[in-house]
Amino acid sequence: MTGIRAKQKEKTRRALINAALNQLDPQTSFFSLSLREVAREANIAPTSFYRHFQNMDELGLTLVDEGGLTLRQLLRQARQRLADGGSVIRISVEIFMDFIANNRGVFRLLLQEHSGTSKEFRLAIAREIDHFKAELADYLLNERKLPEHLARLQADAMVRIVFSIGADALDLSAAERAELAEDTILELRMIARGATALQKPKGEYNDPT
Amino acid sequence: MTGIRAKQKEKTRRALINAALNQLDPQTSFFSLSLREVAREANIAPTSFYRHFQNMDELGLTLVDEGGLTLRQLLRQARQRLADGGSVIRISVEIFMDFIANNRGVFRLLLQEHSGTSKEFRLAIAREIDHFKAELADYLLNERKLPEHLARLQADAMVRIVFSIGADALDLSAAERAELAEDTILELRMIARGATALQKPKGEYNDPT
Repeated sequence: MTGIRAKQKEKTRRALINAALNQLDPQTSFFSLSLREVAREANIAPTSFYRHFQNMDELGLTLVDEGGLTLRQLLRQARQRLADGGSVIRISVEIFMDFIANNRGVFRLLLQEHSGTSKEFRLAIAREIDHFKAELADYLLNERKLPEHLARLQADAMVRIVFSIGADALDLSAAERAELAEDTILELRMIARGATALQKPKGEYNDPT
Repeated sequence: MTGIRAKQKEKTRRALINAALNQLDPQTSFFSLSLREVAREANIAPTSFYRHFQNMDELGLTLVDEGGLTLRQLLRQARQRLADGGSVIRISVEIFMDFIANNRGVFRLLLQEHSGTSKEFRLAIAREIDHFKAELADYLLNERKLPEHLARLQADAMVRIVFSIGADALDLSAAERAELAEDTILELRMIARGATALQKPKGEYNDPT
């Protein structure tokens, strides 16, 4: 394939992806989208769809993969840029909220199909979320020197909180989202503080709280 | 209505509810259930369905209400029985995990429709979850003497974690669920410890973690 044709092909593929995303809204699940309508919105013939994706499922799983990857990259870059010691929790939450606001369709797909009826999608989304947890746990282990068990649990708790709050943030105004971001930051600090506190001796794992 | 007829009516209503629950599984969303099949499974004529519910939506919203109420009552009783000072986190998590194992259909409905395409269901489920948070925040305010802001955020974080973990617990074996319960307990203790730590002065709200 020549460079120009490859570029054109990528452009059409991207148009299909965007067409699908544009059609996702709170009332429309991914599985109710039709290939025909997605192709029409992308301005291509329905039969040309198959040059890019085997079927709608493959398109959906691509959305899941790309959405997860983009967000992870953004967060990783932020952590690296913070070597100077800003608040990694604050910058991560702000990036996350921006991502949601700019990628509502993808995030809605992740949420709906995380507990949806397609096992293939459930598993793909669970893998994305595990990937977030693993990267954060590594960071806590290496940069924050938490013991492995606590690093894993802190990462697990944080990612759960953030995805859960993200679901609520989807339909908010920018001002409401900013307010929710402040709550999120405090909840994540609560968890970070708690992990540090649980490191201390005194058999605190078993205290009756 | 005589006592016997009222009892019979309640029994049929309950049979319809259970019939719907029995048909919910990971591959079947509530909105794909048909009134006809639910009636058949409950051993009543489809037309008799309407003596109990206006339509399937009303049946679904009843499941949401009753599920939330049952779980809240169980947790409230546990907190009251713990005046002697056992671990309220441990007992609450154990009750929650038992509830999920015994009410998979209801919990799956809550999860799927929490981010599903029906606004009516989304709102009903959000109200149930807010109800959990409010009860827990009151407890933290009154029994644990947390300041209101922190009590609200701690309750918010805890309920989000528990519902998120609950989703993962749905399809686990009893042994795996017990293991996940231990992780849950530690994550909730992390949050409780963190809330206590954030109460201390020193402008810690702003520290760069």
